[in-house]
Amino acid sequence: MDTIEPASEARPDKEPRTDRGRRTLRKLLDAAAAEFGEKGFHEASISGITRRAGTALGSFYTYFDSKDEIFRALVSDMSGMVRTHSAREVLPEMTPIEIEAAALKGFLKFARDHKEIYRIIDEAEFVDPASYRAHYETTAKRIVERLEKGAASGDFRPGLNEAHAWAIMGMNVFLGMRYAILAEDREIEEVVAVASDLLRNGIAKGE
Amino acid sequence: MDTIEPASEARPDKEPRTDRGRRTLRKLLDAAAAEFGEKGFHEASISGITRRAGTALGSFYTYFDSKDEIFRALVSDMSGMVRTHSAREVLPEMTPIEIEAAALKGFLKFARDHKEIYRIIDEAEFVDPASYRAHYETTAKRIVERLEKGAASGDFRPGLNEAHAWAIMGMNVFLGMRYAILAEDREIEEVVAVASDLLRNGIAKGE
Repeated sequence: MDTIEPASEARPDKEPRTDRGRRTLRKLLDAAAAEFGEKGFHEASISGITRRAGTALGSFYTYFDSKDEIFRALVSDMSGMVRTHSAREVLPEMTPIEIEAAALKGFLKFARDHKEIYRIIDEAEFVDPASYRAHYETTAKRIVERLEKGAASGDFRPGLNEAHAWAIMGMNVFLGMRYAILAEDREIEEVVAVASDLLRNGIAKGE
Repeated sequence: MDTIEPASEARPDKEPRTDRGRRTLRKLLDAAAAEFGEKGFHEASISGITRRAGTALGSFYTYFDSKDEIFRALVSDMSGMVRTHSAREVLPEMTPIEIEAAALKGFLKFARDHKEIYRIIDEAEFVDPASYRAHYETTAKRIVERLEKGAASGDFRPGLNEAHAWAIMGMNVFLGMRYAILAEDREIEEVVAVASDLLRNGIAKGE
């Protein structure tokens, strides 16, 4: 299969240096999310992206060399958005279990507002496998840190590890696929309550 | 995006009527799994499939009209294999929680032996969205049935529903991605023990 080249080193020369530049870059990434989300990688075009962004073609090349490069930047951008939107619902006084519920709530809200995220991340498996893997490995690492913190404070069982993190991540991703992408037939709060109860108590009946 | 046409009605005229026919069909589906798994849908070819199968091109057209059609048949075939391989580890005397663990064990073993399954099912999201959705909806339905049975016998909490099923399915799919596809750096038994403990007890420390 054709996959795009792995990311080379950072490109500090291409970082926007002004507020206007940052706004243009943001517009290009948002336009790329819409273009790739609607058409998929192969049918998407740079001119489609600049048209949606309302920017000149020259602005695109100020920040990106190719369609491959903006796709890779977009996956990394969306991965970051998942992180910030999940963190947005977390409050300082929350317990570790409440933090897991809040992170899922933030993610589900984000996914409902940005349904293209599934197609883009999922297409990265084929178009840019390194970014696909990095997205999940980074997310899992973040969950492991939360689990270790919760175990240290005595809220979680000891011994939670990477496998628990992948299990929780998969649970969240699939609840998002079902209740944010396929249909919005249940309230986010209800879905979060199911996941939170599963993490708190499991599904077995207590003795 | 280009997606393949949804399946038309069943094609009883194309069902193999002899053992030899069934063996040829099996060879074609196995060859298709290898071809699509290695090359992806767009690069894969019918001649690549028949070459791998060691069958004549005419045999292909006895059973399938097109690359689209064998891809659709393959997704449905793999979905069925997930079901049968998960069920293979289940024993009649098992408790509902043990059944969940056995189903995951069977799935992880199958995924390690058929690593192409992730690429094929995941590519269906783009190439054949109806089959992609059907695979997960069917799998979730099967889990719901097991949860309801477990709740009826008093082994599981009451009130388990579709959201629990999607959560468990996501957990299983992601544990497979991590420990069957990305790396085999933990024993299947250990991974199953983590998931089973999560379902049994959750991750919160008991009071």
